Amino acid sequence: MDSDPLPGYTGTIRNLLEERGIRVGDRIRVRKGEIVYEGVLMPREKLYDRPIVVLKLDNGYNIGIRITENVVIEKIGKLGIEYKPPSGEVIEKKGLPRINIVSTGGTIASRVDYETGAVKPALTSQDLAALVPEIFEVANIDTRILFNIFSEDMEPRHWEIIIDNVKKLIEKGCDGVILTHGTDTMYYTSAALSFAFRKLPVPIVLVGSQRSSDRPSSDAAFNLISATLVAARAPFAEVTIVMHGETGDSYALAHRGTKVRKMHTSRRDAFQTINDVPLAKIYPYEKKIVMLTSNYRKRGEDKEVVVENGFDPKVALVKFYPSITPDIIDYYVDKGYHGIVLEGTGLGHFPNRLIESIRRAVEEGVIVVMTSQCLFGRVNMHVYSTGRVYLEAGVIPGEDMLPEVAYVKLSWILARTRDPKEVRKLMLTNIAGEINPRHTVNLYPRWYHGE
Amino acid sequence: MDSDPLPGYTGTIRNLLEERGIRVGDRIRVRKGEIVYEGVLMPREKLYDRPIVVLKLDNGYNIGIRITENVVIEKIGKLGIEYKPPSGEVIEKKGLPRINIVSTGGTIASRVDYETGAVKPALTSQDLAALVPEIFEVANIDTRILFNIFSEDMEPRHWEIIIDNVKKLIEKGCDGVILTHGTDTMYYTSAALSFAFRKLPVPIVLVGSQRSSDRPSSDAAFNLISATLVAARAPFAEVTIVMHGETGDSYALAHRGTKVRKMHTSRRDAFQTINDVPLAKIYPYEKKIVMLTSNYRKRGEDKEVVVENGFDPKVALVKFYPSITPDIIDYYVDKGYHGIVLEGTGLGHFPNRLIESIRRAVEEGVIVVMTSQCLFGRVNMHVYSTGRVYLEAGVIPGEDMLPEVAYVKLSWILARTRDPKEVRKLMLTNIAGEINPRHTVNLYPRWYHGE
Repeated sequence: MDSDPLPGYTGTIRNLLEERGIRVGDRIRVRKGEIVYEGVLMPREKLYDRPIVVLKLDNGYNIGIRITENVVIEKIGKLGIEYKPPSGEVIEKKGLPRINIVSTGGTIASRVDYETGAVKPALTSQDLAALVPEIFEVANIDTRILFNIFSEDMEPRHWEIIIDNVKKLIEKGCDGVILTHGTDTMYYTSAALSFAFRKLPVPIVLVGSQRSSDRPSSDAAFNLISATLVAARAPFAEVTIVMHGETGDSYALAHRGTKVRKMHTSRRDAFQTINDVPLAKIYPYEKKIVMLTSNYRKRGEDKEVVVENGFDPKVALVKFYPSITPDIIDYYVDKGYHGIVLEGTGLGHFPNRLIESIRRAVEEGVIVVMTSQCLFGRVNMHVYSTGRVYLEAGVIPGEDMLPEVAYVKLSWILARTRDPKEVRKLMLTNIAGEINPRHTVNLYPRWYHGE
Repeated sequence: MDSDPLPGYTGTIRNLLEERGIRVGDRIRVRKGEIVYEGVLMPREKLYDRPIVVLKLDNGYNIGIRITENVVIEKIGKLGIEYKPPSGEVIEKKGLPRINIVSTGGTIASRVDYETGAVKPALTSQDLAALVPEIFEVANIDTRILFNIFSEDMEPRHWEIIIDNVKKLIEKGCDGVILTHGTDTMYYTSAALSFAFRKLPVPIVLVGSQRSSDRPSSDAAFNLISATLVAARAPFAEVTIVMHGETGDSYALAHRGTKVRKMHTSRRDAFQTINDVPLAKIYPYEKKIVMLTSNYRKRGEDKEVVVENGFDPKVALVKFYPSITPDIIDYYVDKGYHGIVLEGTGLGHFPNRLIESIRRAVEEGVIVVMTSQCLFGRVNMHVYSTGRVYLEAGVIPGEDMLPEVAYVKLSWILARTRDPKEVRKLMLTNIAGEINPRHTVNLYPRWYHGE
């Protein structure tokens, strides 16, 4: 247990609070010129060393107030006054789309543990809805908790449960499903759902946040409002990830579930589309959706939901490194794995010294797929002799698929068939937008080169 | 053997050549308005279906000529006239810096195999120098072939040979060393050299090309000229990768050897700096170097070269995937590995179900380091409980190091010491620019969002 009465507060701000006998959990009043804030003092994130106090206001929002010289801080309630969130009771409005929010855990459904200062999953979907009342303007919303796990613990068997549940919700009749999910592995789950939902009449939107929803500067509300807009109104019936498009609060992006990756450990705009354009730009405050492509399944085009569920967990993702030895391939073959996705170098290469192990794997019926740790661009194994040797050994080139997506796809295919010819055919077939046959120059981001 | 007389030529271009009885290897003349080209017809790259013929001109350059309606093609020599490259003989000019070009293989030192159409390593450094006469304007150049292997086959023991040889060349006295290297694993080798050269009075420049040097649109010449400029004139004595900065021929970039990654399978500007600014922008035609940072070791600041050579090959890089099981960690521990770099998710997470295996690894003296598959941003294992559990188990947070660089660094450290405290201290110390304590907003590239 952290006995610090002011976790996260340092320097002059800490002195100022200590002088007034204020500790986290106390109700305080902050006057800043004409403006007066009242609320419960919250712990600060230790990552930042800025002169800010964090208040939970009575409307449920958190606010970070910069403390300048003209600010007056008073304690108006003693320690132990607990913040109670609004009940989340909502009245159904006729004519609005019906959306289901399914919670699986993650930061968007989390709160700060005031004892340790750590983030723990806790908020129910109802709490969330209460914290973001805007979403009730665009949809009637049902919420449910499916599970509450860290996304790094999400396994293929969890995908199967999610898919079953989302399928049932859509069959019961709704206009879209929102899945709150930890951002760490959201792109694996979005790929899994993309392959499983063979017919889909409405959008499935995965959404998360990079900061928990009861922290200042949380992106939870912005992302959830954007996700609700997509679920309720988007013209497409695709599995999509909706997250901040840039660091500000101007727009979110809807990414195709098979072409997206978390590219930053902490930024709000960590999620980016690779080797394709995002599906749409979402302006949540203007309630506007701007499509960036016409290449999508239209909402309602499929009249029913058809699912092919099931993922083979006996698939490994093996990344190249210079001292890699052939026995890691043997290891997976001997352990009875059914598939191996190689994350090779460049156009799709792996060391020549591993080729005998690869040949043996293929001979024993293990499917081997080549992708590239470059992430951007397409595998082409015809250019160099190493690539051709691997092709001749029976390795399947992974086109422009992300290694992570090729892994999910192979896991999905191997739960349907283990016939090598059939698997090869399916791996090379664009099933859920995971293969983009045409790359335009602008798909590569513009890097900072000092201009 | 490919019996096609016109490998790579298709459609109307092929018809046009066939009509005139022209085959690859023939000497032909191409008139395009006022301009007349003469040279030997070369095979085409099959990747492209553009109306272009490729000529090797007498000056040694290849040129791609777009065939439009007003172009006249004549055969002026029969099959079998072989192209002989210039001898590469050069006369030393007094007063110019002395540069060593060391060839290790890769596309930059390769040519097309005319029988199979494949790229094979073949060109000597001398051939290369003959093909790119511009480099003799800025330096006196010695060339040597160290080895001729595909970079995907480069192992830590090759780094050691490279380091020994480069050290000797610098000790003999030179103003810079250029290392031609396959692009696939160039960023591993550049990191290895960065750690090994503890004192370095002159620049070491790794350079490669995405298309072989006797192909049209090869980037070999542009990159080699840029690399020579850096080796001869750059104000810094750093290990750096010099490659195209954008798709055109305007500038190259010099990337710090520990902060760079191949980010595209085929683009010329595949190499990009991650989590830092590039060292410099190179304008080879203007012979101009524009520094983008003042944070570098100055040329001549170190008076001698000091090397700590040696890399432990018993280090593994293990990338997270959702069905990963604890036994992969056990496997490496049981195989007597000394270090494991985890490529985790988000802020540095791995599934909680692996924690017992990780604890056992650490207890048995195996060093475990956490990095993130996000690539951009910094690991922070204090935010979520999973991260803290891994920290408590003794996992070392990899800061903002690329997974590939953390792997090379751990391999280098473990060849010096296996004392866990010492290894931890070194892993958390910025030794060769691999840890950037301050990230600015512009380090994240700008992605295409449809504007």
